[in-house]
Amino acid sequence: MPESPITPREKDFAAWYQDVVMQGDMAEPAEIVKGCMVIKANGYAVWEHIQRELDGRIKATGHSNIYLPVLIPQSFLQKEAEHVEGFSPELAVVTIAGGKELEEPYVIRPTSETIVGHFFKRWIQSYRDLPLLINQWANIIRWEMRTRMFLRTTEFLWQEGHTAHASHEEALEEVLRMLDVYADVCENILAVPVIKGLKTRAEKFAGAVATYAVEGMMQNGIALQCGTSHDLGQNFGRAFDVQFQSSEGKLDYVWQTSWGMTTRLIGALIMTHSDDKGLVLPPKVAPKKAVVVPIYRKDEERAQVLEAAAKMAEDLGAHVDTREGQSPGAKFFHWERRGVPVVFELGPRDVAAGKTVIKRRDTGTKEIIAQQEAREKFGATLEAMQAELLARARQRRKENTVLANSIEEVEEILKPVTAEKGGGKFVLAHIADNPSNDERVKSFKASIRVIPLEDNYDGPGKCILTGEPVARRAVIAKAY
Amino acid sequence: MPESPITPREKDFAAWYQDVVMQGDMAEPAEIVKGCMVIKANGYAVWEHIQRELDGRIKATGHSNIYLPVLIPQSFLQKEAEHVEGFSPELAVVTIAGGKELEEPYVIRPTSETIVGHFFKRWIQSYRDLPLLINQWANIIRWEMRTRMFLRTTEFLWQEGHTAHASHEEALEEVLRMLDVYADVCENILAVPVIKGLKTRAEKFAGAVATYAVEGMMQNGIALQCGTSHDLGQNFGRAFDVQFQSSEGKLDYVWQTSWGMTTRLIGALIMTHSDDKGLVLPPKVAPKKAVVVPIYRKDEERAQVLEAAAKMAEDLGAHVDTREGQSPGAKFFHWERRGVPVVFELGPRDVAAGKTVIKRRDTGTKEIIAQQEAREKFGATLEAMQAELLARARQRRKENTVLANSIEEVEEILKPVTAEKGGGKFVLAHIADNPSNDERVKSFKASIRVIPLEDNYDGPGKCILTGEPVARRAVIAKAY
Repeated sequence: MPESPITPREKDFAAWYQDVVMQGDMAEPAEIVKGCMVIKANGYAVWEHIQRELDGRIKATGHSNIYLPVLIPQSFLQKEAEHVEGFSPELAVVTIAGGKELEEPYVIRPTSETIVGHFFKRWIQSYRDLPLLINQWANIIRWEMRTRMFLRTTEFLWQEGHTAHASHEEALEEVLRMLDVYADVCENILAVPVIKGLKTRAEKFAGAVATYAVEGMMQNGIALQCGTSHDLGQNFGRAFDVQFQSSEGKLDYVWQTSWGMTTRLIGALIMTHSDDKGLVLPPKVAPKKAVVVPIYRKDEERAQVLEAAAKMAEDLGAHVDTREGQSPGAKFFHWERRGVPVVFELGPRDVAAGKTVIKRRDTGTKEIIAQQEAREKFGATLEAMQAELLARARQRRKENTVLANSIEEVEEILKPVTAEKGGGKFVLAHIADNPSNDERVKSFKASIRVIPLEDNYDGPGKCILTGEPVARRAVIAKAY
Repeated sequence: MPESPITPREKDFAAWYQDVVMQGDMAEPAEIVKGCMVIKANGYAVWEHIQRELDGRIKATGHSNIYLPVLIPQSFLQKEAEHVEGFSPELAVVTIAGGKELEEPYVIRPTSETIVGHFFKRWIQSYRDLPLLINQWANIIRWEMRTRMFLRTTEFLWQEGHTAHASHEEALEEVLRMLDVYADVCENILAVPVIKGLKTRAEKFAGAVATYAVEGMMQNGIALQCGTSHDLGQNFGRAFDVQFQSSEGKLDYVWQTSWGMTTRLIGALIMTHSDDKGLVLPPKVAPKKAVVVPIYRKDEERAQVLEAAAKMAEDLGAHVDTREGQSPGAKFFHWERRGVPVVFELGPRDVAAGKTVIKRRDTGTKEIIAQQEAREKFGATLEAMQAELLARARQRRKENTVLANSIEEVEEILKPVTAEKGGGKFVLAHIADNPSNDERVKSFKASIRVIPLEDNYDGPGKCILTGEPVARRAVIAKAY
């Protein structure tokens, strides 16, 4: 057997990830553009599946898609003090256009709150214009120092929702509604279990009053933020002078929210489910749910097997791998590395006996079944696989979640953890939302990931650093 | 009756277009970013319908979607001499990123042939890697001097297909296959009739061997290029050193194609079908196919009418306009301006009699029908409207197509034509593909739009400028 093109996880997790991404036809680095990637055919098809699921939910909750310019006047970013401070180091700036130096440079959008603020001012006069619920699918540039395909790239694709409301209460409802949508997509589509929670003040979005997030755990125990939903309060309303007349005739600034999910989700599902053989895709986002591999040696078997394979594939909505000059073994490896959930094998004896072999990607289990039951088995296998991927990820997270009751304990657990060596944990500890506490946790390169929205273990306690009472344990971890 | 917010076409075609776009919730100018627009909810929803139709056809012809970086090293553009000359004046250049001056600036993609060339070199070694058929959905920046919403904007959205082949013959087949796809989408989805043809050498894409296009005619007789498909020959293969080993073991440069359609299509359908009342959308791209407007005066009628309206809407997959504080008349205008193909009116007497009024957007015809036949009538109306919009546009084009047998005749017909005053024509004349001929036509601000692929009138003739024999008449017109 030829050596696997995929580095085992045990040996080097980062190399494994890169191999899975490349061998799975998901992406490859675009070295010529710093920190960018090319999203390849299989990767983009997964993104299209994620988009469809997410877009459907965004529309079902009343939002309309629109499209805003990719270029933003540089001065716009300066209107919100925290926002400009947070994003300035990451900007790509257009200074020349149409052969001339620009009087005012544009930045390529690192996020669109500022240009949204500008247009909200145009579009909103009265409470009758509220709530205003928009979303856009777009590309984003943030000049990142350290990049990793899908997880953090200079350019990425995302959706960004932006809404304006007449009251803080209504805005907060929106923030939490979209957080629920995000958790639903993570768990029920990507089979990635997440914890919904509040980010600490030190970790919130630059310009937000509060940031909520869904936080996942990768196979190596490292945390990955999978989506964020921001309560912007009236910060951008004030910065862009977006006022509305209330039903009582009073003028007030609008209450805004924004929320986004990105191509990072593809990294999340790869790091949650894939194995040393390559990509494993949850059936709901797998571009090809099944491939039929016809097996024949002699020319006289060929026509018969191909015909039966084509018929079966049509029945199942599957793809037949009819490539010539490729052995069945090479074909199995090919689809395995691309994460196809189910492969059917079909040889001359199977055809004669009305049988086929069904093989499931994640467990590697094989079963000889009657062709007549293929459709039923296929559906059941996809369903089982989708459910079990989530259950396994949940179980893994459970096994890698620990309690700690002092900062020394937290440090002892997390200090040795690296993304490469693995062994990461979610450490649950009582810790107050206070930038100096974040600072202490950062001293061993971990971070407070979220303060969960729902109580997770044992209710209130005293902060392990300041002794002040806190409502529940937060999740502390090393993160991507 | 309040004054219409839409300028009549007769008065000022350009103002009419702008009004239709704005009142139809399709787009609005984003003055703060030169030449850009915001695509608003109705406009973006139309774009999503166009995307779905086009994307399905692109996939059905064997292409895979991928995503390439938006930034391209500036030096890449210089590798193909004609390409850099054509695009240099239109580039937006990023010179600062991450707080530092860049050693080599990046340009925001004005099109992706150069970065595609770079990656094709990575991906293609042998004839086994061919054909390579990719497509991407992306945003584009071209610093245009004169812009008009949808038709020509600094930033626009498009799909760009890029393919590599082992022979010129195969590449040319691809070019024409995609031209057919484009014509199909224009005619059968947008109801915009087009002429498939070859661009003259003077009008071809910078870097192509030949450019084919689908050319439409707007209501004012002005031509609009609706999509292009380029035979790139080996130009980019040579510029980026993309060689493959043929099945005979010889090294050769790949033969490439590229083809694109943009958000300009939305402008095409607006300018083809809309009227002085506002937007008219072909049913196949209408985000809402029908709206039910409930009519009631007294409170006791309200519940009954709303219930019947909701039931009917559910049956038909239509939207019910339940907005309070808006008169039925205001609602009719609202949906009319947004181009909804069918509006059902439902009042208390209709409910009692089991009737409803069906109103068709393009013709304005109203008919009282039984609610039981609403579904059937609705389907038939959408079908008739889709077909008749195309037929009317065909008829209009026919009426505005004329023959000319001398350059003076062409000039006399086209010189007075402007987009604002209308009266544009397609002038069919025998004219050779020769840059000096294009130049002569440009002297009266017209252009040779296409040399049709199929004979249109009377076969071969002699060039009206040089006297040399040409195979068929070309289309000369004023154009957007």
